[in-house]
Amino acid sequence: LYEGVTALDAVGPYEVLSRVGRDLGFVGHAPGSVRTDTGRLGLSVDTTFEEVEAPEVVVVPGGPGQVALMHDERLLDWLRRVHRTTQWTTSVCTGALILGAAGLLQGKRATTYWLAMDQLDQHGAEPVRQRVVVDGKIVTSAGVSSGIDMALRLAALMVGDEGAQAVQLGIEYAPDPPFAAGSPDTAPPHIVETLRSLSRFILEPTD
Amino acid sequence: LYEGVTALDAVGPYEVLSRVGRDLGFVGHAPGSVRTDTGRLGLSVDTTFEEVEAPEVVVVPGGPGQVALMHDERLLDWLRRVHRTTQWTTSVCTGALILGAAGLLQGKRATTYWLAMDQLDQHGAEPVRQRVVVDGKIVTSAGVSSGIDMALRLAALMVGDEGAQAVQLGIEYAPDPPFAAGSPDTAPPHIVETLRSLSRFILEPTD
Repeated sequence: LYEGVTALDAVGPYEVLSRVGRDLGFVGHAPGSVRTDTGRLGLSVDTTFEEVEAPEVVVVPGGPGQVALMHDERLLDWLRRVHRTTQWTTSVCTGALILGAAGLLQGKRATTYWLAMDQLDQHGAEPVRQRVVVDGKIVTSAGVSSGIDMALRLAALMVGDEGAQAVQLGIEYAPDPPFAAGSPDTAPPHIVETLRSLSRFILEPTD
Repeated sequence: LYEGVTALDAVGPYEVLSRVGRDLGFVGHAPGSVRTDTGRLGLSVDTTFEEVEAPEVVVVPGGPGQVALMHDERLLDWLRRVHRTTQWTTSVCTGALILGAAGLLQGKRATTYWLAMDQLDQHGAEPVRQRVVVDGKIVTSAGVSSGIDMALRLAALMVGDEGAQAVQLGIEYAPDPPFAAGSPDTAPPHIVETLRSLSRFILEPTD
């Protein structure tokens, strides 16, 4: 977790992975609360990077705060170090750009938030427009809500299909969105354009 | 928010509603952090019940901590009081049982977590097996992840279909679960039975 994280990026996978029978925790720069991107919600960091040496799985969430972390060597070094022994190194949304900044996406097929797809190749990744992309032990997913789908895929890889199905039923994940607007391929084109023009203010790297 | 809340119940609707251009906050018994049901994540309460007099919308999340609140007169009185002037009074998962304990579901069509459906009629509600149920200004939704669908419906009611579609695209909500196990109607029957037998330990009221 970090300042300016998007809450659902982190909480979606957490809600799934907390049900697969592994120990789990939120890791960050310092113990305490970080504010999510709206400023209206704090999420607790219980553990610092240095306290976690060999996690089985790492999930890197996205959010506007990602931009400030692209040269955060403490975080990037930690990701490179634990990635050597993880079973799965994963991201949601623009969390993929943090994996990229750590050099972990070189030559990998990967995805990210639809408005950030053109930033993936700066990190040597091959952009793939899918909701979840698995390439070796790197698992990346699309924007914000996609972390739920990603974590269910991951749960199936970790504990098998039946375990993942039990988790899916446990969170009653039979999604039924009222519109088909969740992807730029299906949303009304003028809404896609509106968000694309607004994104210049929130997604452009500042350095 | 309360001790033992299920994180996604609260964070799903928050992620949607934070994008509809209203002020928004997390309300609870005391300022500080509450621990979610796993004990592994704290969510921040910034505001106490008494500080919020006339919210436009109330969302009551569910979770195992709901059981301890069924006679919490401070919470139930607050819900009854603000419900008089809300535009929408809503719940996710077993949050519906809290609305019920406050007497707000009398004669209303409502839904809740699939494993708690048989508790709705104790509160005078008519159980309806739908993902989202709108009856007057009461909006209830099914388990955990259903709060995202509920909040998108609510966003459409609040700001219109186009605004809700922009929010849906903003969180890239084009769900694609790997299995069709998210409902007891579609999950493998033995997995439904396993969760049903386990639920005796987590959902039964203790008094």
